[in-house]
Amino acid sequence: MVGASGYTGAELLRLLVGHPRVEVVAVCATEKSAGQRIDRLFPSLAGSLALTIEVFDAARVAERAEVVFTALPHGHSARAVAELRARGRRVVDLSADYRLHDAETYRTWYGDHPHTELLAGAVYGLPELHRAELAGAELIAAPGCYPTAATLAIAPLLARGLVRPDSIVVDAKSGVSGAGRSAALGYHFPEVGESLRPYKVAGTHRHTPEMEQEMSRAAGAPVRVLFTPHLVPMTRGILACVYADPARAVTEAELRAAQAEAYAGEPFVAALEGDALPDTAHVRGSNRAQVAVRHDARTGKVLAISAIDNLVKGASGQAIQCMNAALGWPETDGLLGAAVFP
Amino acid sequence: MVGASGYTGAELLRLLVGHPRVEVVAVCATEKSAGQRIDRLFPSLAGSLALTIEVFDAARVAERAEVVFTALPHGHSARAVAELRARGRRVVDLSADYRLHDAETYRTWYGDHPHTELLAGAVYGLPELHRAELAGAELIAAPGCYPTAATLAIAPLLARGLVRPDSIVVDAKSGVSGAGRSAALGYHFPEVGESLRPYKVAGTHRHTPEMEQEMSRAAGAPVRVLFTPHLVPMTRGILACVYADPARAVTEAELRAAQAEAYAGEPFVAALEGDALPDTAHVRGSNRAQVAVRHDARTGKVLAISAIDNLVKGASGQAIQCMNAALGWPETDGLLGAAVFP
Amino acid sequence: MVGASGYTGAELLRLLVGHPRVEVVAVCATEKSAGQRIDRLFPSLAGSLALTIEVFDAARVAERAEVVFTALPHGHSARAVAELRARGRRVVDLSADYRLHDAETYRTWYGDHPHTELLAGAVYGLPELHRAELAGAELIAAPGCYPTAATLAIAPLLARGLVRPDSIVVDAKSGVSGAGRSAALGYHFPEVGESLRPYKVAGTHRHTPEMEQEMSRAAGAPVRVLFTPHLVPMTRGILACVYADPARAVTEAELRAAQAEAYAGEPFVAALEGDALPDTAHVRGSNRAQVAVRHDARTGKVLAISAIDNLVKGASGQAIQCMNAALGWPETDGLLGAAVFP
Amino acid sequence: MVGASGYTGAELLRLLVGHPRVEVVAVCATEKSAGQRIDRLFPSLAGSLALTIEVFDAARVAERAEVVFTALPHGHSARAVAELRARGRRVVDLSADYRLHDAETYRTWYGDHPHTELLAGAVYGLPELHRAELAGAELIAAPGCYPTAATLAIAPLLARGLVRPDSIVVDAKSGVSGAGRSAALGYHFPEVGESLRPYKVAGTHRHTPEMEQEMSRAAGAPVRVLFTPHLVPMTRGILACVYADPARAVTEAELRAAQAEAYAGEPFVAALEGDALPDTAHVRGSNRAQVAVRHDARTGKVLAISAIDNLVKGASGQAIQCMNAALGWPETDGLLGAAVFP
Repeated sequence: MVGASGYTGAELLRLLVGHPRVEVVAVCATEKSAGQRIDRLFPSLAGSLALTIEVFDAARVAERAEVVFTALPHGHSARAVAELRARGRRVVDLSADYRLHDAETYRTWYGDHPHTELLAGAVYGLPELHRAELAGAELIAAPGCYPTAATLAIAPLLARGLVRPDSIVVDAKSGVSGAGRSAALGYHFPEVGESLRPYKVAGTHRHTPEMEQEMSRAAGAPVRVLFTPHLVPMTRGILACVYADPARAVTEAELRAAQAEAYAGEPFVAALEGDALPDTAHVRGSNRAQVAVRHDARTGKVLAISAIDNLVKGASGQAIQCMNAALGWPETDGLLGAAVFP
Repeated sequence: MVGASGYTGAELLRLLVGHPRVEVVAVCATEKSAGQRIDRLFPSLAGSLALTIEVFDAARVAERAEVVFTALPHGHSARAVAELRARGRRVVDLSADYRLHDAETYRTWYGDHPHTELLAGAVYGLPELHRAELAGAELIAAPGCYPTAATLAIAPLLARGLVRPDSIVVDAKSGVSGAGRSAALGYHFPEVGESLRPYKVAGTHRHTPEMEQEMSRAAGAPVRVLFTPHLVPMTRGILACVYADPARAVTEAELRAAQAEAYAGEPFVAALEGDALPDTAHVRGSNRAQVAVRHDARTGKVLAISAIDNLVKGASGQAIQCMNAALGWPETDGLLGAAVFP
Repeated sequence: MVGASGYTGAELLRLLVGHPRVEVVAVCATEKSAGQRIDRLFPSLAGSLALTIEVFDAARVAERAEVVFTALPHGHSARAVAELRARGRRVVDLSADYRLHDAETYRTWYGDHPHTELLAGAVYGLPELHRAELAGAELIAAPGCYPTAATLAIAPLLARGLVRPDSIVVDAKSGVSGAGRSAALGYHFPEVGESLRPYKVAGTHRHTPEMEQEMSRAAGAPVRVLFTPHLVPMTRGILACVYADPARAVTEAELRAAQAEAYAGEPFVAALEGDALPDTAHVRGSNRAQVAVRHDARTGKVLAISAIDNLVKGASGQAIQCMNAALGWPETDGLLGAAVFP
Repeated sequence: MVGASGYTGAELLRLLVGHPRVEVVAVCATEKSAGQRIDRLFPSLAGSLALTIEVFDAARVAERAEVVFTALPHGHSARAVAELRARGRRVVDLSADYRLHDAETYRTWYGDHPHTELLAGAVYGLPELHRAELAGAELIAAPGCYPTAATLAIAPLLARGLVRPDSIVVDAKSGVSGAGRSAALGYHFPEVGESLRPYKVAGTHRHTPEMEQEMSRAAGAPVRVLFTPHLVPMTRGILACVYADPARAVTEAELRAAQAEAYAGEPFVAALEGDALPDTAHVRGSNRAQVAVRHDARTGKVLAISAIDNLVKGASGQAIQCMNAALGWPETDGLLGAAVFP
């Protein structure tokens, strides 16, 4: 585990220590944290994991670990991944560095990619959409939290031609853990309580091209997304509403059937029936996603909704699901914990 | 004040006791509360208001009060208003009963209206859009919280023909006080914390026709709205995102200018400049609204945003603003308190 | 599982479905819930448990289950337990009915006990203090949440004669889930947010005699407790501060050693070292407890502190720990999940 | 207003703009903020106050202001106050610099005091206890938030000899705004939600000597306090429980009478009657305090409780109350706003 000082790192460790086939052999973080025990950085891990944090050294990690999870800032992750791949290690990267297949798009949003040669071989780790590619994959890019939520909701409708690819609006709301563990005024408790606010609106959030890539793939046609992220005064969870115009006259039954078929048999995605609607409280702490869809008779428009825990299905849980898929293990290994409610 | 046992009643009283031209002479609520002092029902009013709650009797209230605020469940408010109007009293009604001009639309959403004869004379109390009608008005319908937020954001764009009337999507998020003071499992603290969820989606929320009425009026053409309300784990505040397709090629500067012009000189609505975006924490406890607008270059769509305190600008503060306007008092009387932050 | 409709029921099921030696064969609740699937009552269990809720029938439950957890209101639990014991089933009761050994004390606080004949055989299920009695126990009373927190903090000091039995003050603060799942105005979200309040102060809370029983046992002398519970605007967690006068001149080192020795080797109780202090966020969702102690040089008094998750170590997790102990299984089975942070 | 960049500064300005006899002529803060409009730092003040932040210059401020509020870090405030006093300006200081009368005590807790010559003339600004001294006072030290809460609860009992001066334990809980506006990991939203924790326990919090000074004065005998502060996941409010041993056999009626008499006629302190207990939600945003007291029959001990808004009665509101008292204005001027609930 490389990049253990953030929330996704902590959540990954929480889940891995309960995984029946995994032993955590090393945790790496910045020099500032190195030498400390991980349960000093995260007292929630006390009694579960007693490793001492190391400074990352690809050779030393590669000696001990068969699979490495990397969760560093973009750019840094790209390089760490390359060093580990050069030593033949399987890597699941939780950064944005290997999510975009197109180096040019990466450059537009993040700057020059230091290892474009690895992009083609990286698998986008949304198992429900990329299961075949994940089998045996050696470099997996765990998806972003917003793209996971939005794509799970709308991809089945795009894939079946039920909605227009040029009409997608994603209005998504996230708990504050999505902003990471670095203290800043915008995430200071008194500033966040009773504060509901959008941020990075109108095509400025870096998850935009990732959604577009995956939705375009599902649609078989270019999708451009109007994406509005919000910060909500809670810690975990993403609720995404995806609005779309129908591609033809559709019924709600067709829309529901599309989601239901797409996720039939999926262990972690539930297409809700009847009046049920997604609720972040019902997936908190678990790798589960809820999706639902409605046809709005007044306007003819379509509304697809999803809820996930941004740190689990939106990050660390999904990364483990990908590892399981890549290694041929049951995809649910280590991930069957029910949501923590209330 | 009739219907004092809910949050809008309490908030109205909080604001009225600080109003320089108003004396609160009577508070009425249900039989269950009658006989209690209002500060027993709302200890937050201790030291500010010591009236004993009465059962509503139109004649006795009309004897003492020149203006009456009614905040009863729909249907009940309609009747109380009629009794007070029959006695010549000026009424500001906070229920939905006199908001919809069309009796047929009212019937569809609420059932038969007991006093359709009063509908034509009622003024929809959004001062920024109906100021002229409010002067001298004797029956004012204070708008719903969601319609206030959504209409303030998008009306200037509709009025100037910048966005298509048939393309409006309102994705709005509310604090839990909007659900009222009646305890129910859905609003039980442990169920709400860390819970973000939509409800009454796809044309089933009763604020839909109210938005459509006001947006249609602004647009001069029929508007149908896809409205998605959400419950957010906070107490006060509404944040509304209104999505629309442009009616023609528009620039963001044009869009911003439309909001800026519409609200120039308005004491309670600020069209935010530069990068600033609405935030419910910045209007909490005040009668102020923030609006902003963006053009999304990727999709060509328009995003208008607003934030209000649902209990103040979305209910009781706006009701007082309407009273001020109707009586020819400065509209800001009793409403200049700054937002309570943090 | 009998009494599955509350939060302790749901938490018990969440933990049991992950227990390697347990299969949940029946969930019982009130007639109102019967016939529904448990994951309809608790959508957080979707995908984890698909049982249909039954009305409790002791004979039918006893046929299928070897161990039964009961979590009914006091009085009701006493009777259900008696019926199950009459059929030879091992029972872990999460109500207050079998916690107090003295029938007279029970009567004072709860009314007549319907099965006083069972009191003598019931084991108070705080494994750290009653491990020997738990081995093979057939009727276990899982402790209350506040008594668990307070007793774990102070018992080692009382047992070693370091503090005076007649000087104990417990100031404890609980998240709202401790109040159960029944909606009431006092737990309505807008009433709780930003509300910090004591309740049932000065010897009126029913956990008082339970603390006194266990602290007296530890002290070997009668202990009377001044207990002040508080409601805090969070969902889970109890933080208890226990104040006491020293029995003689003591040093902080002695006090720390007492806690450290008492919990050396305990899998679920950590006596914190150095400057570390208990924090509910560090045990959330886990069966762990944190304790610490300080000597206040200014006043000579002693402060012992603890943090637990009220639904886990304070209820359902501890109940499972007791079952494990009773059956001779590793006490940690099914309970090793790390705290969910953040 | 000097030191406008923190929460107490913002709250002071919110209250002052509604004060009928005050005009805010200058706001000063650090160089970093200087040149910005105050409503950029605090968007909640938009529409209420449009001043541009200045770097503090005593001469320039003294030219324009008759009364100056200072709220700088300790040490800095001491010097700013001295410069303003040298120019004859009346000062209300919200820092800790002039609260302790004893320079030696100040040194122990804060370091050398740069202007010990001013200590003797400074009045401790708790109007309910120091009203006579406040009349005409030229240097007022606004009390700390915890000392305000704890002292209001217990002083009447100490003053009447009802409780023993050597037995005082203060267990107090504060919202996070008490920690100020500087972002730090400990106040990062995801770390605070669901986190309840004590800090600076056992005589290490700087409010300890301040409580002791005021309680000793009330008791007419030296008081030493065991003080335990806690951080609670809410933004505003302090709830203090003060435990004490009775000085002789006392009845609850005597204890209640002591508080009731002490605060009879006080506009801002309510001694609660009957079963009512203090609740921070009932004073939020207001200058009011609630106190209550109980005799615990089991242990004979006394429990006094209070609730305040830490930013108002615990800081800025009380500072204004002191200014009013010093200038001979009605003490309630600008402070009659009811609590903001919910």
